[in-house]
Amino acid sequence: MIQRPRGTRDFGPEEMERRRWLEGIMRSTARDFGFREIATPTFEHTELFTLKSGPRIVEEIYAFQDKGGRDIALRPELTAPVIRYFLSDMSNEARPLKVSYLGPCFRYERPQSGRYREFMQFGVELIGANNPESDAEVIGLAASIMERIGLDEYSIRVGHIGILREMLAEAGLDQGQAAAVLQKLDKKMYDEVRPMMMSAGMTDEDIRTVFDLTQVVGDVSVLEGMTGEAMQYLIEVFGVLGNYGIDQALVDLGVVRGLDYYTGIVFEVEAPCLGAEKQVCGGGSYSLSEILGGERVFSTGFAIGFDRTMLALEKEGLDVGDDGIDAFVIPVKEAQMPKAFEIVSTLRRAGLRADVDLMRRSIGKNLKYADSSGARRAVIVGENELEQGSVTVRDMDSGEQTLVRIDELVNFLDRPNSS
Amino acid sequence: MIQRPRGTRDFGPEEMERRRWLEGIMRSTARDFGFREIATPTFEHTELFTLKSGPRIVEEIYAFQDKGGRDIALRPELTAPVIRYFLSDMSNEARPLKVSYLGPCFRYERPQSGRYREFMQFGVELIGANNPESDAEVIGLAASIMERIGLDEYSIRVGHIGILREMLAEAGLDQGQAAAVLQKLDKKMYDEVRPMMMSAGMTDEDIRTVFDLTQVVGDVSVLEGMTGEAMQYLIEVFGVLGNYGIDQALVDLGVVRGLDYYTGIVFEVEAPCLGAEKQVCGGGSYSLSEILGGERVFSTGFAIGFDRTMLALEKEGLDVGDDGIDAFVIPVKEAQMPKAFEIVSTLRRAGLRADVDLMRRSIGKNLKYADSSGARRAVIVGENELEQGSVTVRDMDSGEQTLVRIDELVNFLDRPNSS
Repeated sequence: MIQRPRGTRDFGPEEMERRRWLEGIMRSTARDFGFREIATPTFEHTELFTLKSGPRIVEEIYAFQDKGGRDIALRPELTAPVIRYFLSDMSNEARPLKVSYLGPCFRYERPQSGRYREFMQFGVELIGANNPESDAEVIGLAASIMERIGLDEYSIRVGHIGILREMLAEAGLDQGQAAAVLQKLDKKMYDEVRPMMMSAGMTDEDIRTVFDLTQVVGDVSVLEGMTGEAMQYLIEVFGVLGNYGIDQALVDLGVVRGLDYYTGIVFEVEAPCLGAEKQVCGGGSYSLSEILGGERVFSTGFAIGFDRTMLALEKEGLDVGDDGIDAFVIPVKEAQMPKAFEIVSTLRRAGLRADVDLMRRSIGKNLKYADSSGARRAVIVGENELEQGSVTVRDMDSGEQTLVRIDELVNFLDRPNSS
Repeated sequence: MIQRPRGTRDFGPEEMERRRWLEGIMRSTARDFGFREIATPTFEHTELFTLKSGPRIVEEIYAFQDKGGRDIALRPELTAPVIRYFLSDMSNEARPLKVSYLGPCFRYERPQSGRYREFMQFGVELIGANNPESDAEVIGLAASIMERIGLDEYSIRVGHIGILREMLAEAGLDQGQAAAVLQKLDKKMYDEVRPMMMSAGMTDEDIRTVFDLTQVVGDVSVLEGMTGEAMQYLIEVFGVLGNYGIDQALVDLGVVRGLDYYTGIVFEVEAPCLGAEKQVCGGGSYSLSEILGGERVFSTGFAIGFDRTMLALEKEGLDVGDDGIDAFVIPVKEAQMPKAFEIVSTLRRAGLRADVDLMRRSIGKNLKYADSSGARRAVIVGENELEQGSVTVRDMDSGEQTLVRIDELVNFLDRPNSS
């Protein structure tokens, strides 16, 4: 028998209910913040991703040639496609342009817990603004999503890539050296980065200062007395977050995010219940458009790992059940089949979730099937009751049966308002 | 600048609103009928599709080797993946199993109007039933979706593959010959199929009878007096459709659908406004599971071409607008910025769609931006009004301005109930 490809997943009905629920919250929260959804193709020209992340990215993604000999790749992330779309079709829109996206992404990597070869990303980009308010807006949206989905334990950690960049520049490192050092610092690989910093001419004291900075974590008061342009900017961002009433964000100068195109604030959301793979969201302000051949445009965005967020919610005991169907209609004998179809059709037209015997089964077997498909009630269509214009409605939990007139059935079954 | 790949599309905010609206109707209608959503990976082992459709399908799809040397392919359709999933994980579920799916599919073909290399399919499979009621249930769902999305002009054409198969068998054709003939008949290529039928030994009269049958179109009364098992079955299906109150389905014995795994009824939905590419939905009853290495299980399903359906709705003048945001908050001066962020945050927490100046612009420029982003009202936060605990609310359509107390702002702005 044919298996699904390694590192991919199928999703059953219960899981899909939860996923659609989570999707809905993410999309509607973004909409409440003025971000509108867009979509781009599942694959792109490979060059889009090598321009953004360097040629070595090809080793980690699904890159191949199509029948026309074009190098294409399943997208590993959505920021580059969104900026490509912006440059080709939306650069004349009023700014800031606020967009959101949701879709599958792909990485060819060893499958392991919480990491899949196909995974879903939700994200936003706020394009064409570059100030503390626009950065805080994006962080605020990430915080609101975490709040609305009801994740109990998470931390939002905000840093500024400029703080370490300023310091490394002052210590005499050129851009290439600084980038290499930042990549190591992003992963807190102090032992590996120390010799690099020394050979770049940094003193022990400078190195210690840098290492100490990456350990600065706490509320905004930890920045008191610190100086520098980037530091001031970060304090302003926290000021706006305060105005938004968002008090769960932490300063964490160790958040570096090792990619060259970040220009200012950088932030991450972590869900500690996930252990080693605890990052559920990463973002920051960046300038990517000129790398893709367009004008320089500043943006701020984030991407949420949809699957990890789902996993975190499930670990915390998320209870989002499908509330089943409202009625399962059962004809007692073949003669009542036409009436049974008429009834199920009436219920569905009234917006109820209803199903009907499609297997010509006995009442007993039908009740068993109705139960397994999560029906709240069974509607039993029998000859004698029909003669009085009625059917028997059975509550599937209590087993209680009620005779209900057919013309009152919709009202009788009408579901309590559910979300 | 990097372009999007040929034959693919980006979707802007207005288009995505419409697509999400259409998705929502399809998914909720299926749910009302007791179908629950599942999902499978974007790519599969190529073998899954060659087993279903023959080795030549590889020429038409995105098939490639992954870094582990496995032959994988972007899915060209979703029935085979769903049946694969059924066989590996759901074969013990209560039957009939009713599932729906929605997702992107891919074909490497020459891009043309209404045909894209990446396109979306919505579909359902009713697995494990094989009778007129289960077939009618699936046709009934397709009809209800067309009804609920409000397509004005469409036809549902239902045939039965067994009618022609019985006739060709009686005329002495073996299965292979019959399959080849049916593929031509599916495309109404009478001139090409005639010599095939003649060389298979069919008489002129037999051939004329077959050709005439493929022209039988009309309401169920066109079947009066016709005989044969398949014919009786088709009449029964129309009987159940009648019970469901679905009267827009037509008999069309020319609907053949040229694939071997169809076993009984076959149907198509056409939207004439689309011209040559007018088919928006195709389905039928089939047995695919044994081809994929599992037990023989009868199913009925359909797939709707999401993009073509969207196109048909747009041609008919579909008007599903985003109703914009409820309020755009504008601080008059920098001193009112903190209060502006506080207000926008309060509005969003109350479930309103609200945005705020992120560019430190003048009131005039902010009003222009608010207008372009579809705000219904602007909330102007000025020093004097703030002292009285109020803000100025400007109706963006009429220009009318009202002084509103901040603690009454949510109520004042609360959107009329919209869908």
